[in-house]
Amino acid sequence: MKRTVFFISDRTGITAEMLGHSLTAQFEDEVDFTYHTIPFVDDEDKAFAAVTRINQAAHRDGNKPIVFETIVQPKIRSIVQSSQAVLMDFFHTYIDPLEAELGVHSSFRVGKSHSTDDLQAYDTRMNAVNFALNNDDGATTQHYDQADIILVGPSRCGKTPTSLYMAMQFGIFAANYPFTEEDMPNIKLRPGLARNVDKLYGLTIDPMRLHEIRNERRPNSRYSSLQQCMLEVREVESLYRKEGIPVINTTSRSVEELAVKIMSDTGIERRIY
Amino acid sequence: MKRTVFFISDRTGITAEMLGHSLTAQFEDEVDFTYHTIPFVDDEDKAFAAVTRINQAAHRDGNKPIVFETIVQPKIRSIVQSSQAVLMDFFHTYIDPLEAELGVHSSFRVGKSHSTDDLQAYDTRMNAVNFALNNDDGATTQHYDQADIILVGPSRCGKTPTSLYMAMQFGIFAANYPFTEEDMPNIKLRPGLARNVDKLYGLTIDPMRLHEIRNERRPNSRYSSLQQCMLEVREVESLYRKEGIPVINTTSRSVEELAVKIMSDTGIERRIY
Repeated sequence: MKRTVFFISDRTGITAEMLGHSLTAQFEDEVDFTYHTIPFVDDEDKAFAAVTRINQAAHRDGNKPIVFETIVQPKIRSIVQSSQAVLMDFFHTYIDPLEAELGVHSSFRVGKSHSTDDLQAYDTRMNAVNFALNNDDGATTQHYDQADIILVGPSRCGKTPTSLYMAMQFGIFAANYPFTEEDMPNIKLRPGLARNVDKLYGLTIDPMRLHEIRNERRPNSRYSSLQQCMLEVREVESLYRKEGIPVINTTSRSVEELAVKIMSDTGIERRIY
Repeated sequence: MKRTVFFISDRTGITAEMLGHSLTAQFEDEVDFTYHTIPFVDDEDKAFAAVTRINQAAHRDGNKPIVFETIVQPKIRSIVQSSQAVLMDFFHTYIDPLEAELGVHSSFRVGKSHSTDDLQAYDTRMNAVNFALNNDDGATTQHYDQADIILVGPSRCGKTPTSLYMAMQFGIFAANYPFTEEDMPNIKLRPGLARNVDKLYGLTIDPMRLHEIRNERRPNSRYSSLQQCMLEVREVESLYRKEGIPVINTTSRSVEELAVKIMSDTGIERRIY
């Protein structure tokens, strides 16, 4: 069975995509979905253009498209509602019960205001991303005193994307330090690390998966050999035990899961919403 | 008025947070919200622990907390429902109408399966993040032929976070190239850029905002002076006009907005969902 799915928003549509996908994922074994995102539908012309695209898909498929939408403005939303689609409304569904519970009216404001708060959040986020970038390769450990957390582990186990995600999504100052062959055997913590040992969080990975990842980067090298991967994983895990460093296995976890698990485990609070 | 808000999920809770915040934002002028996220509520013990936290907040506030949740498993969800809260369910609300429309049953699967598809998506994402990192400072332009897009603009106008976000969220291969003082006046495109001129996307910014951002980094320098910022913005905008490079103003846009607007404008398709 084929179905066309639209994500429609007066903003980026990212929220509609994320929630919509978690819903369609429940039916993917039996339904063949095709996805389209229509972002920034913030005036009537764009709403009518979206309706045209939806109706064309309905005609082509012989089946109603499914529309997941987060449109704030009632007028724009009512135009999209006139299309030949099954509409799943992620916004207005909750506004009425929230108004009733809180006893106040919704402001129906699209997106955030560009207030001082937002500029501060923007700056925090940029500073966090820059911190992650500038403290990514272990070349210098002198800024670790400012870090919220320092991810450690072998090369290619997921430190960099996790620290960048923490910075981008939550405004966390996350450094990361790779243990390399030169540190082994019997890894000693360099002064910048030893001084901040309570901020260290260890990443580990299934050696076979590490071997696959490294092999894509440098095929048939010593660096990517299974033997080397097994050695490095054994060495870092032994260090984590010895120093009492908390540890997470990255093998089959997404970057989002790693970031949230580490934050929830350490109690580090996000700096931005 | 004070209200405690919980985001509860059997996964990371990021979707519940994003949608929940866009809803509470409509009432923030009149209600003082406090936010808590409880991720990975994937067994009955964790569900009962969440209920305890919710009920404590209800008792403390003298007001029902608001719970935004995306719990897939019906059994876990029914425990959370027993709390003294106003529940806004972002998942089950839509499952019934979707089942009815599609004529098939939901699999009630939590999260993604770790299939080959997911590993491929993981690799694509990692490769895109590494590409963005390795092609971030303009030091080399030799890999630009593999780029989906090349963001250009003055230093500190938002190129790096935008290219990283495109990589992380959409798997896009985004390089970025900073035009510096040395390129001015009369910027000439270096061969790597000139050869890929159809991939260039220009960023510009209000010179006063650029001055503020740079001043935080290098206070009272020539680099951060308003005069220098005005000159650089004028120069890059003149280049964009001359070369027919599309342009976006980053001054009051979030990184998400920039990424989605650029993709929607150029028609670049995401590589991962």
